Amino acid sequence: MAGKKVLIVYAHQEPRSFNATLKNVAVEELSQQGCTVTVSDLYAMGFEPRATKDDITGPLSNPENFNYGVETHVAFKKRALTSDIVAEQKKVQEADLVIFQFPLYWFSVPAIMKGWMDRVLCQGFAFDIPGFYDSGFLKTKLALLSLTTGGIASMYTKASDHGDFRYLLWPLQHGTLHFCGFKVLAPQISFAPEYSSEEDRKAMVASWAQRLKSLWQEEPIQCSPPWYFGQ
Amino acid sequence: MAGKKVLIVYAHQEPRSFNATLKNVAVEELSQQGCTVTVSDLYAMGFEPRATKDDITGPLSNPENFNYGVETHVAFKKRALTSDIVAEQKKVQEADLVIFQFPLYWFSVPAIMKGWMDRVLCQGFAFDIPGFYDSGFLKTKLALLSLTTGGIASMYTKASDHGDFRYLLWPLQHGTLHFCGFKVLAPQISFAPEYSSEEDRKAMVASWAQRLKSLWQEEPIQCSPPWYFGQ
Repeated sequence: MAGKKVLIVYAHQEPRSFNATLKNVAVEELSQQGCTVTVSDLYAMGFEPRATKDDITGPLSNPENFNYGVETHVAFKKRALTSDIVAEQKKVQEADLVIFQFPLYWFSVPAIMKGWMDRVLCQGFAFDIPGFYDSGFLKTKLALLSLTTGGIASMYTKASDHGDFRYLLWPLQHGTLHFCGFKVLAPQISFAPEYSSEEDRKAMVASWAQRLKSLWQEEPIQCSPPWYFGQ
Repeated sequence: MAGKKVLIVYAHQEPRSFNATLKNVAVEELSQQGCTVTVSDLYAMGFEPRATKDDITGPLSNPENFNYGVETHVAFKKRALTSDIVAEQKKVQEADLVIFQFPLYWFSVPAIMKGWMDRVLCQGFAFDIPGFYDSGFLKTKLALLSLTTGGIASMYTKASDHGDFRYLLWPLQHGTLHFCGFKVLAPQISFAPEYSSEEDRKAMVASWAQRLKSLWQEEPIQCSPPWYFGQ
């Protein structure tokens, strides 16, 4: 949709990877629609995942007993967060939609992307107490997880070893994105590209490109326990 | 229990924190029992959370299309992983019990600890295909999550905003630890120490110390969907 702004937070080390292809296809398709697309290529940026004192410029409010959540909340209000966090917050603030593109690592995002969440989505910027879930500060925005897996789809059912795929989305979609207010679009899951034929890989890319054409008409999921765990 | 070896993987920036106290109490109590206790203090170590090419020493098997999982699997077999990963794997290999001590960040571990999981628990070392869940390579070992929360206990029930606390443990306890074969002991959850009285904080520390006295007699949880999501 022309005029919309999209941020793609992207975590893969290899520009020739399947994740890179999915990211590139999203950039192309959304740009063609007239959207402004920004990519945060976390590995290429050498993004810092560790939450430390270095995230606060100037004096700490309690240097004797460092509390990351408290100090970053204060620093956000004083405009004393480090520049890489501020830059990412600006991108989020401007975006109508944030897409997270990543390979599933241990039923979650790779550490470099977890670090983006830990550091960028700080109190005061993304939420406050009160001011979370449906009142989260990013409530006018959409978010979408686009991920690849190692395992094939049949390994992620209620009766199989990995359990239903939705179980593992709870901390990310609900505990993080919804907590900050994001309306969550259905995840785009590309199962086991490594173990798929070239034809199947192409079909997965085409399916993502096709979905993006009507993405702005989609309704967000009902991000609450029934969606994840059934009734 | 005399003779047992324990690894504590610890992620807090502040030696005066409540997390540090819980870690210190575990070191004291387990040492008094005659256990050998090793602590990986991730922030103090400046532990690297990012999964990159730098984790492999010597030539890559496919430098044209870098695949982290494949390359680290090969590197593990060729003893070509970087020294910080090898050091952590040695600690895990020697341990009878691994305790993870951390504050909950976004319904999960802080990025620095996620990076420990991403990088240390590589294919060939912690699991293989086949060789996961009950056949995972760490199946003779116990694991336990000891964590603190920002929110109070009543926020983590089925009917409340955060949902049942067990929901968020699925990716960590099942998708990561159980996948590698670990028998998982019940989590130690210290709710909202920041918002608790000094007396309540002391009671939480005492409760952890007390539990550690009979930890070796505990039965692991049944790490499958019913424990997490009910029937």
